[in-house]
Amino acid sequence: MADPRDACGVLGLYGVRGAAPMATLGLHALQHRGQESAGIVTGHNGSLFCRKGMGLVAQVFSGSEGSSLPGEIAVGHVRYSTAGGSSLANAQPLVGRYLGGEVAVAHNGTLAAGAALSEALARKGALFQTTTDTELFLHLLAQEQAASESAVAAMLAHAGPAFAAIFLFPDKMIAARDPWGFRPLVLGRLGKGYAVASETCAFDQMGAVYEREIRPGEMVIFDDGGCRSRCFGDSGGVTARCLLEHIYFARPDSVVFGATPHVVRWQSGVVLAGEFPLEADLVVAIPDSGVSAAMGFASALGLPVERGLIRNHYVGRSFIAPGPEARAMAVRMKHNVVREVVRGRRVVLVDDSLIRGTTTATLSRDLRDAGATEVHLRIACPPTRHPCLYGVDFPRREELLAHRYSLQEIQERLHMDSLGYLSLDGLAGIFGAERDSFCTACWTGNYPV
Amino acid sequence: MADPRDACGVLGLYGVRGAAPMATLGLHALQHRGQESAGIVTGHNGSLFCRKGMGLVAQVFSGSEGSSLPGEIAVGHVRYSTAGGSSLANAQPLVGRYLGGEVAVAHNGTLAAGAALSEALARKGALFQTTTDTELFLHLLAQEQAASESAVAAMLAHAGPAFAAIFLFPDKMIAARDPWGFRPLVLGRLGKGYAVASETCAFDQMGAVYEREIRPGEMVIFDDGGCRSRCFGDSGGVTARCLLEHIYFARPDSVVFGATPHVVRWQSGVVLAGEFPLEADLVVAIPDSGVSAAMGFASALGLPVERGLIRNHYVGRSFIAPGPEARAMAVRMKHNVVREVVRGRRVVLVDDSLIRGTTTATLSRDLRDAGATEVHLRIACPPTRHPCLYGVDFPRREELLAHRYSLQEIQERLHMDSLGYLSLDGLAGIFGAERDSFCTACWTGNYPV
Amino acid sequence: MADPRDACGVLGLYGVRGAAPMATLGLHALQHRGQESAGIVTGHNGSLFCRKGMGLVAQVFSGSEGSSLPGEIAVGHVRYSTAGGSSLANAQPLVGRYLGGEVAVAHNGTLAAGAALSEALARKGALFQTTTDTELFLHLLAQEQAASESAVAAMLAHAGPAFAAIFLFPDKMIAARDPWGFRPLVLGRLGKGYAVASETCAFDQMGAVYEREIRPGEMVIFDDGGCRSRCFGDSGGVTARCLLEHIYFARPDSVVFGATPHVVRWQSGVVLAGEFPLEADLVVAIPDSGVSAAMGFASALGLPVERGLIRNHYVGRSFIAPGPEARAMAVRMKHNVVREVVRGRRVVLVDDSLIRGTTTATLSRDLRDAGATEVHLRIACPPTRHPCLYGVDFPRREELLAHRYSLQEIQERLHMDSLGYLSLDGLAGIFGAERDSFCTACWTGNYPV
Amino acid sequence: MADPRDACGVLGLYGVRGAAPMATLGLHALQHRGQESAGIVTGHNGSLFCRKGMGLVAQVFSGSEGSSLPGEIAVGHVRYSTAGGSSLANAQPLVGRYLGGEVAVAHNGTLAAGAALSEALARKGALFQTTTDTELFLHLLAQEQAASESAVAAMLAHAGPAFAAIFLFPDKMIAARDPWGFRPLVLGRLGKGYAVASETCAFDQMGAVYEREIRPGEMVIFDDGGCRSRCFGDSGGVTARCLLEHIYFARPDSVVFGATPHVVRWQSGVVLAGEFPLEADLVVAIPDSGVSAAMGFASALGLPVERGLIRNHYVGRSFIAPGPEARAMAVRMKHNVVREVVRGRRVVLVDDSLIRGTTTATLSRDLRDAGATEVHLRIACPPTRHPCLYGVDFPRREELLAHRYSLQEIQERLHMDSLGYLSLDGLAGIFGAERDSFCTACWTGNYPV
Repeated sequence: MADPRDACGVLGLYGVRGAAPMATLGLHALQHRGQESAGIVTGHNGSLFCRKGMGLVAQVFSGSEGSSLPGEIAVGHVRYSTAGGSSLANAQPLVGRYLGGEVAVAHNGTLAAGAALSEALARKGALFQTTTDTELFLHLLAQEQAASESAVAAMLAHAGPAFAAIFLFPDKMIAARDPWGFRPLVLGRLGKGYAVASETCAFDQMGAVYEREIRPGEMVIFDDGGCRSRCFGDSGGVTARCLLEHIYFARPDSVVFGATPHVVRWQSGVVLAGEFPLEADLVVAIPDSGVSAAMGFASALGLPVERGLIRNHYVGRSFIAPGPEARAMAVRMKHNVVREVVRGRRVVLVDDSLIRGTTTATLSRDLRDAGATEVHLRIACPPTRHPCLYGVDFPRREELLAHRYSLQEIQERLHMDSLGYLSLDGLAGIFGAERDSFCTACWTGNYPV
Repeated sequence: MADPRDACGVLGLYGVRGAAPMATLGLHALQHRGQESAGIVTGHNGSLFCRKGMGLVAQVFSGSEGSSLPGEIAVGHVRYSTAGGSSLANAQPLVGRYLGGEVAVAHNGTLAAGAALSEALARKGALFQTTTDTELFLHLLAQEQAASESAVAAMLAHAGPAFAAIFLFPDKMIAARDPWGFRPLVLGRLGKGYAVASETCAFDQMGAVYEREIRPGEMVIFDDGGCRSRCFGDSGGVTARCLLEHIYFARPDSVVFGATPHVVRWQSGVVLAGEFPLEADLVVAIPDSGVSAAMGFASALGLPVERGLIRNHYVGRSFIAPGPEARAMAVRMKHNVVREVVRGRRVVLVDDSLIRGTTTATLSRDLRDAGATEVHLRIACPPTRHPCLYGVDFPRREELLAHRYSLQEIQERLHMDSLGYLSLDGLAGIFGAERDSFCTACWTGNYPV
Repeated sequence: MADPRDACGVLGLYGVRGAAPMATLGLHALQHRGQESAGIVTGHNGSLFCRKGMGLVAQVFSGSEGSSLPGEIAVGHVRYSTAGGSSLANAQPLVGRYLGGEVAVAHNGTLAAGAALSEALARKGALFQTTTDTELFLHLLAQEQAASESAVAAMLAHAGPAFAAIFLFPDKMIAARDPWGFRPLVLGRLGKGYAVASETCAFDQMGAVYEREIRPGEMVIFDDGGCRSRCFGDSGGVTARCLLEHIYFARPDSVVFGATPHVVRWQSGVVLAGEFPLEADLVVAIPDSGVSAAMGFASALGLPVERGLIRNHYVGRSFIAPGPEARAMAVRMKHNVVREVVRGRRVVLVDDSLIRGTTTATLSRDLRDAGATEVHLRIACPPTRHPCLYGVDFPRREELLAHRYSLQEIQERLHMDSLGYLSLDGLAGIFGAERDSFCTACWTGNYPV
Repeated sequence: MADPRDACGVLGLYGVRGAAPMATLGLHALQHRGQESAGIVTGHNGSLFCRKGMGLVAQVFSGSEGSSLPGEIAVGHVRYSTAGGSSLANAQPLVGRYLGGEVAVAHNGTLAAGAALSEALARKGALFQTTTDTELFLHLLAQEQAASESAVAAMLAHAGPAFAAIFLFPDKMIAARDPWGFRPLVLGRLGKGYAVASETCAFDQMGAVYEREIRPGEMVIFDDGGCRSRCFGDSGGVTARCLLEHIYFARPDSVVFGATPHVVRWQSGVVLAGEFPLEADLVVAIPDSGVSAAMGFASALGLPVERGLIRNHYVGRSFIAPGPEARAMAVRMKHNVVREVVRGRRVVLVDDSLIRGTTTATLSRDLRDAGATEVHLRIACPPTRHPCLYGVDFPRREELLAHRYSLQEIQERLHMDSLGYLSLDGLAGIFGAERDSFCTACWTGNYPV
């Protein structure tokens, strides 16, 4: 149950006819990474053209809005939804003008040193007009007073973790990933041009061909001279790729950090089954987040996977008035039990993660009401106890179930007959030789930077 | 791949505080039955109150619109989406005034004798203001010139198949199902009041308790005297429940015609596996329509089910400009292949039905491009060759793949290594003693009325 | 201060290329006759095409909506705004289908016998789907079961007063005015085609040339055979043209009942000056309703007209929260005093009519606060004491100031130093030989039918 | 015919309960100064709260949006409408964060030294995120790195002409007018609090009491200590108040630069009559811009003023498709001739100014078509030949009729029998001793700074 929300999806196109309409397609495929706002900026004849709005890509670019942005070079962005602080002013890509001319930026991540950078800039007279740290990139660039490759490299070197970002100038595009490689960014070819995106599912949608990851500390410059690579900084050998991308952010069909999330999740289920086996009648995934892990879990134990829960994909949150039954009704707007499947049977619920646990508690009750004789819970990642500093929008620490309660207490609060979390060792083992290249701070509290 | 669209979902509440806000919840759970328009009419202090609009329930009843409709008695409707003929004038519930006072109706189905009824009414001076046959109910009632139970019974006796309909008067509600029982309609209790709906998933959402189906030829009257039943007509012993409800219309978690669609679909997969077994490496469902059948199919053959296709639940149709690559791009807006799952493997695709086949042909190509060595197709219902006269919005006969081509030709057009359709006998067998109580006209051409 | 609101404006075009876009222009010129909703129906290739919406013409037909309605024959309508009973279902033109085929109607007026007609129709099984009496035309036509000229004539003969209406069939248009001639309707030429409208200002906007009034009891048929006239009924010699059209409904620049409202109003001011002369420093019109009469009044007395009140044409009603100062603030959203003009001077306020008087009372206080030493009121029509049965949306009788209070009381309640209403005799005298051809029921209570 | 558009209206409230809802009222009264966008920022509990949008005040603050902004201190803005460069990013008030904290600014005027200031700031690393010069105020303040009164004074001293601006900090408000006094700004009391606005009509609407003009070079600080004044700069004794405010920007009922525009315009008509008398039958104002001047003109010559042209206040621009008759139709959407008034008569048209002349040429033709025997034109200001550098949005110099043509040529192009422009001397004479305190650059080309 993915309570944490990713900090956005980014997309860049260079040398692509009808770059903006094509970018709407790609952003649509990245929609799972952010539903708050969407935006595209294109470059044409020495100027930037921008359209942004609140809502889904299909809402912001309904009709022919996309087509009205001219040019063969574009950067796009989808932003996650937050309760209060969201606003059109924070919608990306951000566009600014400075001594080097016009520039736009689309950013996935969080600048861990944002507060310090912000204060230093303010002391130089900087004026901030948004409440997002993405604006810092533009200010740092304005300090460099140029739009050259070197100016961008110098700016990126100052930014620190964590970012996957794409910069658009009227005549060139630069994509970059921080030296630790927290957030994903992939490079591909689209016809005679180039594409950059957070995940390869955007490439599949646009018909682009995946070439490789952009490397930690690498910036790739796209201009009249084609596409070339440059290193702008290093992390002293530390790689810290965000494992949550594999656990729940990325689309199962993407290639992320060189692997396919569906496959990673399936394997996590297999390992979890080895760590917490049990006797049961069937495995039920919490749809859609737990489906891949549930399949692996069931196959390892030789249990059937059945659809004991059905997800309603229509969003209806707004109907629920506050009141006694309101919370349970809200849960049922998304998930409903298939009674005939669970009646009289021992059920293992599998999910990718467990953050606040409120939904899971309701589902457990609903399953028992429907006649399940036992309800067990298996979580395909370790207990989440620490907030993220590198780009994931977490609940506050006090809201994290595993921060507040012992495993025994959690099992009781969720009305489970048993509870098992995948061990960090088990999870890391899936990646073999690459097991130490990931950030695991939200489970361990060991922050890599 | 459910190309046919259902003719709507209906909902009625009687004796329920805040009937309209509660109805929005129930309609939201029925949203899969119609996305074109939504509407609710309530009765209060001798008058009807109405709100309708184009779009999803959550769009029409965003904010507090639902709450502004007063009363403890309500009827609601969601309508399917059509390309051209759709308009707000056709949105239901329809409301009219006649000698008997005000009345509203919500209807699921199609009046097969609509043209004849319409002409007879016109010869009596009737004025039609919509293009939906649902309006005929109101005209037939206006001919009766009363709002009594008997007037409604007489009107229903004239209507002929096919309908599940709910009538709302300022002080009573009447729910009725045609004598053949084509379309589903269930009865439940909600607190001290009553609920009627197309499917039980609406009851689960509202916290209502399922009691029973409303029987073919039965009308149930809800008024100050409580709830009572009356027979208004019979079909000479013929029952003709729509099997497509089980195959793909109804939500898997509902109870429809006394059974659970997920379970029926799973069993259809099992029988299909018996009729068309094969050697393969994995079973892939076309999500979400084929998931239940694929699970049954795979379990019967001892094959793994894997997520070889991922569905994007965000709707983005509007982006696609016409052009050479447009159709394939449009298919990929909804489904994408998980390459690592299918690479080098023999894949069996399973879906609930096959109507036009355009999407399936693209998926087959995409699977082979991703490295699948074989692609087989298994369809969990018979070849669909005939249009429906009883409430399902089908493509024209010439667009039905199985009407135009032989099975061999279909296999070739879809680039499949083999193709198997579930036999009618195999499908009917799932229902045992009730096997002859279903309408199978879209497969056999034998129209029951 | 025109509190009463007219019952709509109508427009018809026959044989005009791009009839719908041209009709939007004409309706825009008739916008003062109704701001609640706007609609256009066109005929093309044997079918009707319709677009209606709530709001101004420019809102309903923003963008290219008008252009998307095909055909060279169109009927349009603007509807007045009411507080509660307004809804899209009542927006005109109304469209229906009956034995004679499709038909649309746009209507200005009120059928005085509406309740009786409605009950008679209901007894024949009629089903009503709106709450406007305009629907009765369609039902009466459906009773005739044909679309012939004779069927329309028979239907019109049954309708009684008051109407100016335009009927659209897929291949012909019929414009008609009731035998008493309550509401205006004019005929003109537009290129090689024809135009019909409530007022000639629509002709000026479209470039049409005024030919003549459609006569009381006349219907004009436009079809392949050109344009021809037919008499469908007579009133026994009684003509009852609505004088309020000249007093305040019609645009000053139109030709209505053969005269120009600005000129009639000017003359009413002249006569009023003769009936209630006074010594004063300046004449101030309540803008814009009193401007023409104030000019005539001032010229007759040799007084200067000055702009002592300025009208804000931006509509801002929605801002005002209920509260102590709210009413005065609301008045000032529309009118503000020019202090330097009125300070230390004796002011004569002139308006076209006085219905509820709430605004006038506030203006009187504001003028005195600004330093006016005297404030007199002159009203260019008789005291309005009776509601209208023929198409004007009046306040309830109890809200009519002149119904509740004596002239002396009115003068005191409005804080006026003197008060004069134009006499009916004085008003009628303006029309010379035609003085008895008008309905004066709202002043005299003598209802002509 | 006011082609030039003003650069906005500003409003500030301090110590007023419900400051935001009250500000919507005031902005509505200033709506004539800008229709492109509207916005309000409030201060409360140490933070700023902002709502802005495209469109009229009543559109942006429909419903309860205004009420949702908390606090007793508010600044509001309406912005003029431009064809291309307009966007939500440029809507004011602008809000920024810098070392001194949060600040908002609402600005009427244009910074003549904008380009130079902008480049200097860019060289210090400034990042611009809008295309309006108003942003420069925030950057200049960020350079000061404080929110103190002195910091604001220093910033204002750098800004140069032309501005009337209001700055909002979470706990104080500062209103300022440039040392030359180009744009108007008035100070008043509202209950126990204070109000500042571009024109007094906003005070009348809110119930505030006018106290005085804010003086050129004065800044007024509103904070816990009450209201105090400070001088931040001087112009070496040059005052350059914009005379166009009196000629056509300001509402006739406001007090601007100590005088009432309606009275100034009336007097301009009187002087014009002295300079260009003629024999004619009637004076017709081009409504509403020429009404005040026409009244003065007519009274001086003893001619009657009549309504020969009627203005349609509903905005319908969007309907007009390009085409041969399109321009004339567009003019008639706004103005229509009253034929009976002008037929057979010698007409003097009076307007406040003449910029491009396109509308006037069409009106002249329409008047002659309606039977006017002579048409003369009198313009109540000098020929406009030079663009404004100080805050008025003018057409380009080449579009200015009086820049391109001689008076004789203008008379011919507009089909006038005679033409007279008020002399600069005559206009200035109206102001007596203050005659040299105005900017007359658009007529003389003598730019005061």
